[in-house]
Amino acid sequence: MLTIADTHFQSRLLTGTGKFHHPDTMLAALEASGTELVTLALRRMDRRDRDHLFEPLARAGYRLLPNTSGARTADEAVQAARLAREAMGTSWLKLEIHPDPRWLMPDPVETLAAAERLVREGFVVLPYVHADPVLCKRLEEAGCAAVMPLAAPIGSNRGLESRAFLDIIIEQSGVPVIVDAGLGAPSQAAEAMELGTDAVLVNTAIATARDPVAMARAFRGAVEAGRQARDAGLAARQSQAEASSPLTDFLSEATP
Amino acid sequence: MLTIADTHFQSRLLTGTGKFHHPDTMLAALEASGTELVTLALRRMDRRDRDHLFEPLARAGYRLLPNTSGARTADEAVQAARLAREAMGTSWLKLEIHPDPRWLMPDPVETLAAAERLVREGFVVLPYVHADPVLCKRLEEAGCAAVMPLAAPIGSNRGLESRAFLDIIIEQSGVPVIVDAGLGAPSQAAEAMELGTDAVLVNTAIATARDPVAMARAFRGAVEAGRQARDAGLAARQSQAEASSPLTDFLSEATP
Amino acid sequence: MLTIADTHFQSRLLTGTGKFHHPDTMLAALEASGTELVTLALRRMDRRDRDHLFEPLARAGYRLLPNTSGARTADEAVQAARLAREAMGTSWLKLEIHPDPRWLMPDPVETLAAAERLVREGFVVLPYVHADPVLCKRLEEAGCAAVMPLAAPIGSNRGLESRAFLDIIIEQSGVPVIVDAGLGAPSQAAEAMELGTDAVLVNTAIATARDPVAMARAFRGAVEAGRQARDAGLAARQSQAEASSPLTDFLSEATP
Amino acid sequence: MLTIADTHFQSRLLTGTGKFHHPDTMLAALEASGTELVTLALRRMDRRDRDHLFEPLARAGYRLLPNTSGARTADEAVQAARLAREAMGTSWLKLEIHPDPRWLMPDPVETLAAAERLVREGFVVLPYVHADPVLCKRLEEAGCAAVMPLAAPIGSNRGLESRAFLDIIIEQSGVPVIVDAGLGAPSQAAEAMELGTDAVLVNTAIATARDPVAMARAFRGAVEAGRQARDAGLAARQSQAEASSPLTDFLSEATP
Repeated sequence: MLTIADTHFQSRLLTGTGKFHHPDTMLAALEASGTELVTLALRRMDRRDRDHLFEPLARAGYRLLPNTSGARTADEAVQAARLAREAMGTSWLKLEIHPDPRWLMPDPVETLAAAERLVREGFVVLPYVHADPVLCKRLEEAGCAAVMPLAAPIGSNRGLESRAFLDIIIEQSGVPVIVDAGLGAPSQAAEAMELGTDAVLVNTAIATARDPVAMARAFRGAVEAGRQARDAGLAARQSQAEASSPLTDFLSEATP
Repeated sequence: MLTIADTHFQSRLLTGTGKFHHPDTMLAALEASGTELVTLALRRMDRRDRDHLFEPLARAGYRLLPNTSGARTADEAVQAARLAREAMGTSWLKLEIHPDPRWLMPDPVETLAAAERLVREGFVVLPYVHADPVLCKRLEEAGCAAVMPLAAPIGSNRGLESRAFLDIIIEQSGVPVIVDAGLGAPSQAAEAMELGTDAVLVNTAIATARDPVAMARAFRGAVEAGRQARDAGLAARQSQAEASSPLTDFLSEATP
Repeated sequence: MLTIADTHFQSRLLTGTGKFHHPDTMLAALEASGTELVTLALRRMDRRDRDHLFEPLARAGYRLLPNTSGARTADEAVQAARLAREAMGTSWLKLEIHPDPRWLMPDPVETLAAAERLVREGFVVLPYVHADPVLCKRLEEAGCAAVMPLAAPIGSNRGLESRAFLDIIIEQSGVPVIVDAGLGAPSQAAEAMELGTDAVLVNTAIATARDPVAMARAFRGAVEAGRQARDAGLAARQSQAEASSPLTDFLSEATP
Repeated sequence: MLTIADTHFQSRLLTGTGKFHHPDTMLAALEASGTELVTLALRRMDRRDRDHLFEPLARAGYRLLPNTSGARTADEAVQAARLAREAMGTSWLKLEIHPDPRWLMPDPVETLAAAERLVREGFVVLPYVHADPVLCKRLEEAGCAAVMPLAAPIGSNRGLESRAFLDIIIEQSGVPVIVDAGLGAPSQAAEAMELGTDAVLVNTAIATARDPVAMARAFRGAVEAGRQARDAGLAARQSQAEASSPLTDFLSEATP
């Protein structure tokens, strides 16, 4: 069971709400995914999105995780966080600060500064960051409820490009590690879980699939399979094969 | 649904019987895997294995796929196949010929020669081969019911090392492609299915896990997830990110 | 020093003659590459190519390695080999048999059959094959002077996709292993040499570079560097870092 | 030519001084590497190292790049930098801050803070950092003379694990990008140069090779080859092969 800030979740698959072609598809995909925690940009809280996005999600019982997507500095993120808390009625927050609109890569310095302030203001902070082991440790020490290192550039579907660094982050982390961004296929989500990640967040790969509902179901199965495999004790990779069983001379035995 | 030689299977996960510590563990793991097709070495048909391995498997309703593991030449493999057909009452056959006991790598020339003979003798032949596109095509033309290219050296748990060649094999094959050998983690099995493989065979990774039953369940879930993802239309990998949504100036809007 | 069939070569970079935009560019690139062994398709021995390709190469002192590119069966390859020997005055032969014009993947069965016949006819046979360890061993046993396993699909520039299998081939081979096809960058050629490959053959990556002469020079340097590194004893990959030096408390020491 | 802070270098290979078994081996390896810029820990400026390390390096004409290895905070790094400037007579500085002695991963927040202060004090600052595109941009904006993102955990010899992020860093950087840490083989250094890196720093892989002098020479060749290849225009990777030349029916032509 995944536990973030004393809250328990059965599902280890977090999802987002962007890039779906229709709100009904989104709702059906979220249901198929089994997710319990759904991120939503504050900027999507205008009237129309409120009716078509926020209200249905809230009614369906998902815990919402507002995010500060679009914020370029700690100040903007803190301001956005406060607005989100008021608008959505939750102090949970996915903290995202990316100054460059092209790559959407997170800013480590602004993120730490904002996290420190938001923790003091009582937010449950889950920061989206580069897979930087020292930064993750500092965010944990600042009181973040989890860390969300990226797998690969957001929207790239390239999977665990940051594997070597995730290994270190997982080994040293005292809070849940949630891999965010770059996971484009269920196999990649399974691999993240096998590494020891506590959860993954998937949005683009589900929302832009030809069949988002089926893809959501596939990610759900893969995340569960990866976690089961982790618990069941994966064997190590071998550089060399070993014979699968002692080779006996069955033919000579069998011949009369 | 997987169809081999006009026989339909719900499960796309084939399993083996080697390396388990106890027959009961094996039976429980096979059940958890959902497998319908189980490979078994002919050389394991001596009295003791017959009672503890063959009979329980047959009683449990699995379709058995005898294999010629240990054969080093086409002649040995053909002789083994005939014995297997008599002993196990099935003409289905996993054809394995590996002259070198160290690496257990398959022999392409002997395998094609044996396949041609066995097809003529009425066997349903599934040959285990290197991920060699031309060889796979020739085996198909010789009447094999499927081809079983390897992912990586057997027992290595290294996953889809032969990915570049499997892509070609899958694209050109007119018979089912079953990836065999080298899959050490559910994520790797899922990746094989995402590539378009029809099925996978897993043995070592299940049998040698700390908890083989749980690992079997994990592989089952991963194979199903990978197949669903294939059908749901995976997005392509991008070398560059795109913004997840239009970035609006939510802060200025939100501020009165 | 590379030794093939008792002939010594200083250079471990073999080159080809296809895809160059102009014969002069080709000649300049070959010179820059330092190559001593150049492969040439028999089908390029018509009148025009003879004057512009064969004669200048012969004059420049390269040892020519005719190839049977275009042959789809052992019979065609043997016939081509005989024509090549007559036309080019050498019994050295790069044996290529690829039935499918789309992928140009080699046929293992026809290649072994042709190799056996050509060795008996006195040819020095260097077969181009899939990175199949058993096949390479059988070709060696059939009397081939070297084996030429592929790195990746020809023309793909994808590098050592067959790495896991090349490791086995190199470890067990009694004749030189020359990696052929798929090397698209000098770093990939260097990596092949670091693995223990005896030589590499590069054509497309040089011929289609924006500046083929400079690219030829780059491959030359990379092959030499990779070989030097192999001889100098590469360190193993570590999953974990170690401190580079004992960490002393230099600051407290330095402070008075 | 590599230009850092208006200083020109012929060599794009930076080296270090740690882990060598003997100062003479180090000096011979540095000479073989062709390096012009050598990093040296401040903590190695005690009496003995001064005689055996600093003086010979200075005499041999290398530009020295003192580093702050061992510093855990910005304050410690600034203090170390001042001591280094005094002791070694140079304001060039490789800024390293790693709070955790086990992994030696750099701290992004302390590094930026120290860089800002050191630039103001007139240092030529080259910070060693995670391959974090936003951090690299901020360090450039702070006035750093170059950025030194890591390839993989230091001492791991695992090569370009951070490739996906280096691509972005290289594309957007206005100062030289020098890949530091994790390069274990010349092929990896060549690959970094092919990606467009301006230079690489190699220490462990040379110092711990069986033959450090030969390995230094190998790295030199590989760096030059990788750079030449970059300039000569590498072809793109293809997912599919194309025939190397039009396939003509040479056999029918050749047969009378």
